[in-house]
Amino acid sequence: MEHRKILDILRHGHPHETAIVRGWIRTKRDLKNFSFIELNDGSALANLQIVINPQVASPDLLKQLNTGASIEVQGTLVDSPAKGQRLELQAQQIHLYGGVDSETYPLQKKRHSFEFLRTIAHLRSRTNTLSAVFRVRNSAANAIHQFFQERGFLWIHTPILTSSDCEGAGELFNVTQLDLANIPKTERQSVDYQHDFFGKPAYLTVSGQLEAEVMAMAFSNVYTFGPTFRAENSNTSRHLAEFWMIEPEMAFCDLQGDMDLAQDFLKSIVQAVLNTCPEDLDFFNQRIDKTVLSRAEAIVNQDFERLTYSEAIAQLERSNQSFEFPVEWGLDLQSEHERYLTEQLIGKPVILYDYPIGIKAFYMRANDDGRTVAAMDVLVPQIGEIIGGSQREERLDLLQQRLQASGLNEQDYWWYLDLRRYGTVPHAGFGLGFERLVQFITGMSNIRDVIPFPRAPMSIEF
Amino acid sequence: MEHRKILDILRHGHPHETAIVRGWIRTKRDLKNFSFIELNDGSALANLQIVINPQVASPDLLKQLNTGASIEVQGTLVDSPAKGQRLELQAQQIHLYGGVDSETYPLQKKRHSFEFLRTIAHLRSRTNTLSAVFRVRNSAANAIHQFFQERGFLWIHTPILTSSDCEGAGELFNVTQLDLANIPKTERQSVDYQHDFFGKPAYLTVSGQLEAEVMAMAFSNVYTFGPTFRAENSNTSRHLAEFWMIEPEMAFCDLQGDMDLAQDFLKSIVQAVLNTCPEDLDFFNQRIDKTVLSRAEAIVNQDFERLTYSEAIAQLERSNQSFEFPVEWGLDLQSEHERYLTEQLIGKPVILYDYPIGIKAFYMRANDDGRTVAAMDVLVPQIGEIIGGSQREERLDLLQQRLQASGLNEQDYWWYLDLRRYGTVPHAGFGLGFERLVQFITGMSNIRDVIPFPRAPMSIEF
Repeated sequence: MEHRKILDILRHGHPHETAIVRGWIRTKRDLKNFSFIELNDGSALANLQIVINPQVASPDLLKQLNTGASIEVQGTLVDSPAKGQRLELQAQQIHLYGGVDSETYPLQKKRHSFEFLRTIAHLRSRTNTLSAVFRVRNSAANAIHQFFQERGFLWIHTPILTSSDCEGAGELFNVTQLDLANIPKTERQSVDYQHDFFGKPAYLTVSGQLEAEVMAMAFSNVYTFGPTFRAENSNTSRHLAEFWMIEPEMAFCDLQGDMDLAQDFLKSIVQAVLNTCPEDLDFFNQRIDKTVLSRAEAIVNQDFERLTYSEAIAQLERSNQSFEFPVEWGLDLQSEHERYLTEQLIGKPVILYDYPIGIKAFYMRANDDGRTVAAMDVLVPQIGEIIGGSQREERLDLLQQRLQASGLNEQDYWWYLDLRRYGTVPHAGFGLGFERLVQFITGMSNIRDVIPFPRAPMSIEF
Repeated sequence: MEHRKILDILRHGHPHETAIVRGWIRTKRDLKNFSFIELNDGSALANLQIVINPQVASPDLLKQLNTGASIEVQGTLVDSPAKGQRLELQAQQIHLYGGVDSETYPLQKKRHSFEFLRTIAHLRSRTNTLSAVFRVRNSAANAIHQFFQERGFLWIHTPILTSSDCEGAGELFNVTQLDLANIPKTERQSVDYQHDFFGKPAYLTVSGQLEAEVMAMAFSNVYTFGPTFRAENSNTSRHLAEFWMIEPEMAFCDLQGDMDLAQDFLKSIVQAVLNTCPEDLDFFNQRIDKTVLSRAEAIVNQDFERLTYSEAIAQLERSNQSFEFPVEWGLDLQSEHERYLTEQLIGKPVILYDYPIGIKAFYMRANDDGRTVAAMDVLVPQIGEIIGGSQREERLDLLQQRLQASGLNEQDYWWYLDLRRYGTVPHAGFGLGFERLVQFITGMSNIRDVIPFPRAPMSIEF
C-alpha cells in the first residue's frame, strides 16, 4: 500500500482506493459505534476524516488518539456522507507514533490569539492560519524564482557580512568575534580590530543592491533573494530586525523598464499563488480579511496607475483629506498618504516616480530637471509601499558629487565607482520586502505572523 | 528591431534576421577593411562576433571600442566563415554606452591568476571562468528548488540570528547593537545585555536544522536554502566564514529514506546542470579539471555504494595505505580517508552510515547496538564529504540523556524537546554545503572562487 499526502487524496483520490496516510490529529469525536479523527499532514489546509471502528483500535489505543498525537493509518477511501468533504478514510490499521499529554499540550482545539501563538512559534504551524501562511509563503517564494529564471535572470548570492553601509542610512548590527566582555583597545582607547575576524568593523547587510549591480554589469540580469537586517528599535507590527528581500537588477534598463518589470512581477506572483493555493486564499478571505481575493484579482487584472511624485502631492493637497503628517513637495510620503492614494484617490495599485533628490539615496539617477531622481515606489492597498526602486546613476562624475553631498567617503565605494569607470551602462532595479508581500497576499496584519521565527527588539527565542 | 540575448542568438538565431544586442567588449581586432568585436552579455560563455566596417563606426568611435567598453549594436545575422561559430552580426549601427581607460582597466585580455581576480571581485565575473562558475551556480540553485518543489517540500526560512548554538560545537559570530568601544557592564563586570537589541547574547546561525525540524513537524517535508556562518579561523581553500546551505527535513522518514533522498537529490541536480549549462561544463572539463564531465556522469549513471562506518574502517585498515591521520574505530574520518575510499577503494560515490556515537551530534538517533548513531555522510571524488545527515532522536528520554552527556543545558532546548513531547515522529534530514557542490560540479579548487564575494579571515572587501 502506498503512502499518500492528504493534498493528493483530497484532489485526486477515488473511492475504493487503499492508502496509507501519516500526520497529526487535529480533533477526535467519539460516537457510540465509531470515532472520527481529523488528520492533517501540512500538505493541505483541509484535514482528512478518518473513520475508526472498535475492531481497529483498542480502547487503550483510542484513549491516546488525542489532539496533537501523530499516527499512521492504513485504510480504504470511501465517499463521505459528511458535508464539505468528498472522501473519508475507513481505517483498517492504526499505528501511534507519538502521544500527547493533553493536560500540558498548548494547542487544544480552540481559538488562540496570534499573540499567544507567537510564544509557541515551535507549534503554531500546526494551526490552520499559520499553516496556510507558510504554504502561501512557499508558493510565493517559488513563483519568484520561476518568474526570474524564465526570463534568464541569474539568482546571485550577495554577502550578508559587509564592511560597508549600502545606503549610509541604516541602523546596523555589529558582527564580531571579539569577546564582548573584553574588547581589546588601541592606545587611544578605540576598538582594536586587528584582533577581530575581519580585521575591521563588520556589519549585517541592509541590502544586496550594490553587489547586485556588480553582477548585473557582467550578466545583464540578476536578482537576489536573501535575508537582510535592520537594527531599528521599532517594536511595531510592520518591522522586523531580520527579513527577506528580493532585489532584481537589470543592465541596459531605464526607469520605464523598471516599472514594467515591477508590475509584471507582482501580477505574476499573485497569479501563481491564486493558482497553487486556492483553498488557503479562500480561508484568508473568510477568516482574516474579506478583501484578500478582491485585492489579488485587482493586481492580476488591472494595469497599475503611474503618477509622478509631484502629481501625487498635488492630488493629495487637492483632496482636503486631513493627515497626521504634512503633505508638501520635498517631504517623504508617509504610510497614511500612500494608502490614501492607492485605496481612495486612485483605487488600484499605483507606481509613483520621479521623487525629490533630497529624500532619496545617493545612487539614484539624477533627472535633468535638477530636483528629482529616477526613483519609483509601487503602492498597494492595505500595505502602502511594497516595492521601491530606481534607475541607478551610471555617470561617474554625477555619482561622485552625490556621494560627496551625502557625506559618504569615496574610498569606501572604490569598487562601486569602478563600475562607472569601466563599461558603464544605464541600469535599474528594485527591492521587495518579502514579508510585506506575504502580508499583502494573506491579509495578515502583523508582520511577525508571516515569518516562521520573527526577530524583533527583545525577541530572539527559538 | 528586437533586443536579443546572445545565448538566444547562438542557440536559435538564423541568417538574415536582424537583432539588437547589448554587452561588453571582450576583444577587438582591427583588419584592413574591417574590425571584429567579440561581444559578451553574460547570458552565455561564448561571445558573439560583430563585424564592423568603416561606414558604421567613425575612426573616433572605433578607437573607443576597447576591451571592457559597453555597447549596443544593431545589425543583421549572417553565416560566419570563421571557425567555432555558426553566426556573426554584421553591424549597421553602434552605440557606445561607456568607454574604458585601457591604461587602468585591470582586466586586459590575458590570463589572470584566480588569486589576482579575487582582489577585483567586482570585475572578475567578466572573465570566462568566473562567469561560467556563476551560471552553473545559478543553474544548480534553481535545480535544487525545482527538485524539492516537485516533491511537495516547502522552502522555509529559518532564522539567521539566533540565541542558541545548534550543535554546541561551532565557533560563533557575536551580533550586537552595543557600541563595541563602550560595552555596558553589570556590577560583576560581565556584559550587560539588558541594553542590547535582543536583551541577551545573539549569534549568527551555524545551521537551520533545529528550526527545520519544527517545521517538518507541521508540514511533513521542508527544506532550507540560506546562508550559514562559521567564525573558524581557517584560512584554507576549503573554508568560508559565510556560505549557503541546503537542509531538507522529512517527517516519517528513517535513515534509509534519508540516504535515498540524498542520492536522488545529487543525481537530479547534476543532471540538471548537465542539461542547462553544457558549454560551461565543457569549458571546465577542458580548462580547469579534466574529470569534470566523467565525475558528473558517474553521479548520474551509477547508484552510490552504501557502507557502514565500521566496514569502511575495516577496509581502510586492510588497504595498508599510509595516511597522515590515524585510522581507528571511534575516530572521525579525515578528508584523506574519505577521498581514498570514494576515489580508490570504491571508485564511485559512497554513503557511509552508522557512525560511532562519540563523534556525532546530540540530536542523532541512537542505534540499538549502543555504540553507533543513525548518521550518514555522502562522499564524492575530489571533495570527500559533500552531504552529512542523520535520522533524528525522536525519543524524549534518550534525547535528554544525550543533551546531558554533551554538557548542554536542557532549558535552552525546551522547544526542541517539546517536539518529542507532542506528537513525536521518526524523522531525518541532511545538510549540503552549496559551495562544495558547486566546486564538485565545476572542478574549481578554491572555494573562494565559487561564491561571488567570499568572506574569510581578514577578507570582507566589496
